[in-house]
Amino acid sequence: MSQSERRARILLSRLAEPYDAQVQGLVAEHGVEAVVGQALRGTRLPSAPELRRLSARADRATGVDDAHVARLVGARVLVPGDAEWPSGLDALEHPPWCLWVSGPGRLDQLADRSVAVVGSRASTAYGDHVTAGLCVDLVGREFTVVSGAAFGIDAAAHRATLSVDGSTVAVLAGGVDVDYPRANASLLHQIRETGLVVSETPPGGAPARMRFLARNRIIAGLSLGVVVVEAGLRSGARSTVKHARELGRHVMAVPGSVESLMSQGAHAEIRMGAELVTDGAEVAELVGRMGEDLAPAKQGRVRVEDQLSDELRRVWQWLRPRSSSGVDEVMLRSGLTLAETLGVLRELEREGLAEELLDGWQRRPAGSR
Amino acid sequence: MSQSERRARILLSRLAEPYDAQVQGLVAEHGVEAVVGQALRGTRLPSAPELRRLSARADRATGVDDAHVARLVGARVLVPGDAEWPSGLDALEHPPWCLWVSGPGRLDQLADRSVAVVGSRASTAYGDHVTAGLCVDLVGREFTVVSGAAFGIDAAAHRATLSVDGSTVAVLAGGVDVDYPRANASLLHQIRETGLVVSETPPGGAPARMRFLARNRIIAGLSLGVVVVEAGLRSGARSTVKHARELGRHVMAVPGSVESLMSQGAHAEIRMGAELVTDGAEVAELVGRMGEDLAPAKQGRVRVEDQLSDELRRVWQWLRPRSSSGVDEVMLRSGLTLAETLGVLRELEREGLAEELLDGWQRRPAGSR
Repeated sequence: MSQSERRARILLSRLAEPYDAQVQGLVAEHGVEAVVGQALRGTRLPSAPELRRLSARADRATGVDDAHVARLVGARVLVPGDAEWPSGLDALEHPPWCLWVSGPGRLDQLADRSVAVVGSRASTAYGDHVTAGLCVDLVGREFTVVSGAAFGIDAAAHRATLSVDGSTVAVLAGGVDVDYPRANASLLHQIRETGLVVSETPPGGAPARMRFLARNRIIAGLSLGVVVVEAGLRSGARSTVKHARELGRHVMAVPGSVESLMSQGAHAEIRMGAELVTDGAEVAELVGRMGEDLAPAKQGRVRVEDQLSDELRRVWQWLRPRSSSGVDEVMLRSGLTLAETLGVLRELEREGLAEELLDGWQRRPAGSR
Repeated sequence: MSQSERRARILLSRLAEPYDAQVQGLVAEHGVEAVVGQALRGTRLPSAPELRRLSARADRATGVDDAHVARLVGARVLVPGDAEWPSGLDALEHPPWCLWVSGPGRLDQLADRSVAVVGSRASTAYGDHVTAGLCVDLVGREFTVVSGAAFGIDAAAHRATLSVDGSTVAVLAGGVDVDYPRANASLLHQIRETGLVVSETPPGGAPARMRFLARNRIIAGLSLGVVVVEAGLRSGARSTVKHARELGRHVMAVPGSVESLMSQGAHAEIRMGAELVTDGAEVAELVGRMGEDLAPAKQGRVRVEDQLSDELRRVWQWLRPRSSSGVDEVMLRSGLTLAETLGVLRELEREGLAEELLDGWQRRPAGSR
């Protein structure tokens, strides 16, 4: 991206809100430099009355030395095409004009293996606890935890991640230098020291209400998948899920008591197709790299079938642990001949993995070997 | 069905276990009368060595006057083709030879609008409580509750149903006259008085281990859908679900804490495709008649927060329903001054929407107003 387009994008981030669909349309049609140029010159295009809106903000945008601001608040600004720009954001319907980031992390690399953990501000002790366990587990699997630095689940996610020296990305609605909510200032300070604080709002920008909703699309865009731990039916966390779904990211939710209002949103998401997850292994299996992040089957700590030869497994899998199967049934299902089936059954018996009962064959529990 | 086939089926129920695939195959091929006839005559067919097994039990089967037994235990016996025979059982891979039923209910009619509510014997207080709420709700929607009369979830389902004069069907592994588990004798007595106790095992028959598993297919066959409330990963309740799935019935599970072992089976079922349900309305919507049993959208409830002034909502939303928040916390979150926060909290208290506890403030449920 040229220096002048880069400058134009940063300027535009002070002129227009990123979710401004009309401006997005103009930029798509005319290019960011033309739109910003016209807005600054106060050009009145009959076809683009929106530019008048932008022009009203021109003074406060052009008067700012962004390089100076960046140095002051310890941030850098990214635009599409930069090496550190996370490619996941390009899939957004309204990508940010630019991103301000503060912290030692490399955003593109962190986003490459990251899970968003989000939820209600008014979380319960259960939600906080489950969030912590999940994040500690994800850190152990080398995932970055992305969240929004709000009270409740967000804060629990960042805190747990920091507690085990994991990397965490906080995506803010206000500027990266604006500690909001105020009570999370020291948390945000820690994240700036070790991970990344990210925002499309220029430094100093207020966390206005619409920006919270806009921010959620960035959380979704920066993550391979989104986990909702606890959310009321109308929680903002569900807007993050909506974006994740639109982006084709994995959508997951943690179940809880049906009597808890704070689990209603998670349950509603599962009913709408989100994957139910109960631990970090299940999350990793879903969002992780093929073959690398398989969750251990809950049934089998060390699974018997993993230790069997192909032939033995072929028969063993058709035996049931609590009721017996006739030899003919096992033979039909395994696709072996009768002699082969009987041979394998005898071998399983010698291995202590099957036993012959009066009416057929039955698995023996692995533990009883 | 002819009287002689009927007699043959009842005899066969004393000669062979219903899940005996070999005998099922012979009956399918030769008809029940031929199989029973040959078994009783002790015929040795080279093609059917199984009949020898049946012949060994012939004495104890032919010596019984079933009509007399039925009168003694207050039961009747149903065979396929009887008006009261529930057609749902015909879909089973191994349908019962006959069914013994005891109670005033009409089995075909009850099964026509019934939900099986099943789960772990070792249920938690949460599971029992959710089961009760679910069953009371299903009774209100005129569903019959089917279960297995075991400890835990089964008993909770039957008890809650009886408590609101609903109809409930208990499907036993032993004979309909055998009170098992012994501690549920009075529960079974009540069910025989008002609903139905059902078994394919002839009266006096022991609740043998294999019969419990076989029984589960009948629970599934008698229901439009199966709800698992709580189940361990290897719970027998999951075999009922497996049958329901094979029969194309609705499979549902209630979520719970991810930290509860007793919810692991329910969560595993949801991950395998069971519908997550949180109340009777959602169950009814799934299994009920089109258009008649629509669950109200959860979003659409009259929400407390919709009725509050902006200022009240600004404070109320930061209160948690189950743990208390300090005034300073609420003040910080709401962005009001201390005096304003206290004023609003007192107003919420007058409205019955909040209460002050020793360590802070807490939401009160809207219902308790």
